[in-house]
Amino acid sequence: MSGPLTIGADLGGTKMLVGVLDADREVRYESRETSRGHSEDELIGLIVREVADARKACPDTVAVGLGLPCTIDFEHGIAIAAVNLPFTDVAVREMVQEQVGLPVFLDNDANVAVLAEHLYGAAQGARNVVMITVGTGIGGGLVLNGEVYRGSTGAGAELGHVVLQLDGPACQGSCPGFGHAETLASGTALGAEGRKAAEGSPDSVLGGLLAQGLEIDGKAVTAAAMGGDEAARGVVAEIGRRIGATLSGFANIFEPDVMVVGGGVMAAGDLLLEPARREVEARALRPMNRTPVVAAELGNDAGMIGAASMARIEFEQRG
Amino acid sequence: MSGPLTIGADLGGTKMLVGVLDADREVRYESRETSRGHSEDELIGLIVREVADARKACPDTVAVGLGLPCTIDFEHGIAIAAVNLPFTDVAVREMVQEQVGLPVFLDNDANVAVLAEHLYGAAQGARNVVMITVGTGIGGGLVLNGEVYRGSTGAGAELGHVVLQLDGPACQGSCPGFGHAETLASGTALGAEGRKAAEGSPDSVLGGLLAQGLEIDGKAVTAAAMGGDEAARGVVAEIGRRIGATLSGFANIFEPDVMVVGGGVMAAGDLLLEPARREVEARALRPMNRTPVVAAELGNDAGMIGAASMARIEFEQRG
Repeated sequence: MSGPLTIGADLGGTKMLVGVLDADREVRYESRETSRGHSEDELIGLIVREVADARKACPDTVAVGLGLPCTIDFEHGIAIAAVNLPFTDVAVREMVQEQVGLPVFLDNDANVAVLAEHLYGAAQGARNVVMITVGTGIGGGLVLNGEVYRGSTGAGAELGHVVLQLDGPACQGSCPGFGHAETLASGTALGAEGRKAAEGSPDSVLGGLLAQGLEIDGKAVTAAAMGGDEAARGVVAEIGRRIGATLSGFANIFEPDVMVVGGGVMAAGDLLLEPARREVEARALRPMNRTPVVAAELGNDAGMIGAASMARIEFEQRG
Repeated sequence: MSGPLTIGADLGGTKMLVGVLDADREVRYESRETSRGHSEDELIGLIVREVADARKACPDTVAVGLGLPCTIDFEHGIAIAAVNLPFTDVAVREMVQEQVGLPVFLDNDANVAVLAEHLYGAAQGARNVVMITVGTGIGGGLVLNGEVYRGSTGAGAELGHVVLQLDGPACQGSCPGFGHAETLASGTALGAEGRKAAEGSPDSVLGGLLAQGLEIDGKAVTAAAMGGDEAARGVVAEIGRRIGATLSGFANIFEPDVMVVGGGVMAAGDLLLEPARREVEARALRPMNRTPVVAAELGNDAGMIGAASMARIEFEQRG
């Protein structure tokens, strides 16, 4: 007995991953399409087509879960605002549901990712989980008392948008905040600090990239650090320290069983995570200073797996 | 029908308030004792005596709730660590329960305060509530999905211990953190900033206090601000701004229905709260930027009322 089949779709700024999942986490079908540069209508059309293809492959699916990098009105299935998708106050659930003829549930991509890690990944068995996904920005997901916590309408758990510097730089995209972790401890910050380090250390690998006029972004800094460049390692450690300072606050707030870090910057592995762990240990109150900080396990599939799992949970709860 | 009677005891660093409450929030009995300078044993003895007196006055009480300014192991009833009380890993519940012969429940003072405001005060009817109590330090309480959120063992919701300045000053008491709201946005910070303002504005009321060698603490700054002193008003507004920046992060994390501010600094009223509200509106993401920020309503009784209410809820849930 593997429970009902559900479709999960993880729509990002560059690609969409769609899969059919059973309750044992077996992936019965999978597809991947590019989403970059699409308009709102084209994206809705893409979702509808890909979901239809998934149903053709697995006819007995009962519900669809969509994970989007947006603030979401969960109850009403509305995408409120996004940085990397052309969605502003769009009734995505209604539009997709009408065309696919299955119950559709909409959630933030980081919320479905934490659900996936909670059910099948790095946070299995934990009752209280904090997860941050550190890429271009910082996404956040919370499992509290065993359930995904979304806030009053579903727009909460924006864990990247907390203050690290009271009068720090303006935040990214549509966020009006200042000195947020999203700005100071993300992959974008990794690139920005990498460029500073390149200027200060012309003999380093980073300095070489600068001299050649090559782009120094988070990926380049991570690659240089993994290759042993001391300047790049220093930058990765500083971003890890800032991530850790952010997590130490979450430890004091949530007293979670575990804190999970995912996203592109985790390519640096323990070069990033060890400084983060040290900061939590050094800064958090007892007993929260002993909260484990672990790497996400499900990688790029977390969104799809979580979206399908969310759809199954909502479908079963609503009857 | 007013439900079972329970005893609530709010033990602070200087006094203890004990009351007997019914489920309609009627206070049937009340007593107040000093607690300053007591040893661990003397404090336990004080609690036992005051609870016994309350039972004499209202014999049909069924349970006792204690609110303490400590990190708490809720399940086991242990006071783990406190700044203003001589409690370190003390099994307070067991010790009191043995001597009073009633079920005893132990919780953090800010957790019982938010419960009281949720049931009877400024957060009535709200499903998700963030409360901070700003005095010498900053206490925190959370109601999430209608229930007090305490973290995995009961030590969470330490909302004053979040970072506002990545490399800011060391935190107070037993907290090993840096740049916390507790240090930068508390009543203690109000006094510290007031002393700076006094030096910079010798003609102000604050400057006059300094010239006379009088103490400039949070209370003095608040009084000067309420009296119209511009220098003091600037200090109160700056602390309000920092409180608001902290709350803007909580708005993004929790998407609460309401955020409640209590504690000694609220004597400044809207002089403090208006700058805090402006900061939430300016810094938080949509729709969290519209989260109401309101003053606590139950004042010094919140702890006792919340402790008694917590005991009633736990007594009824555990059968």
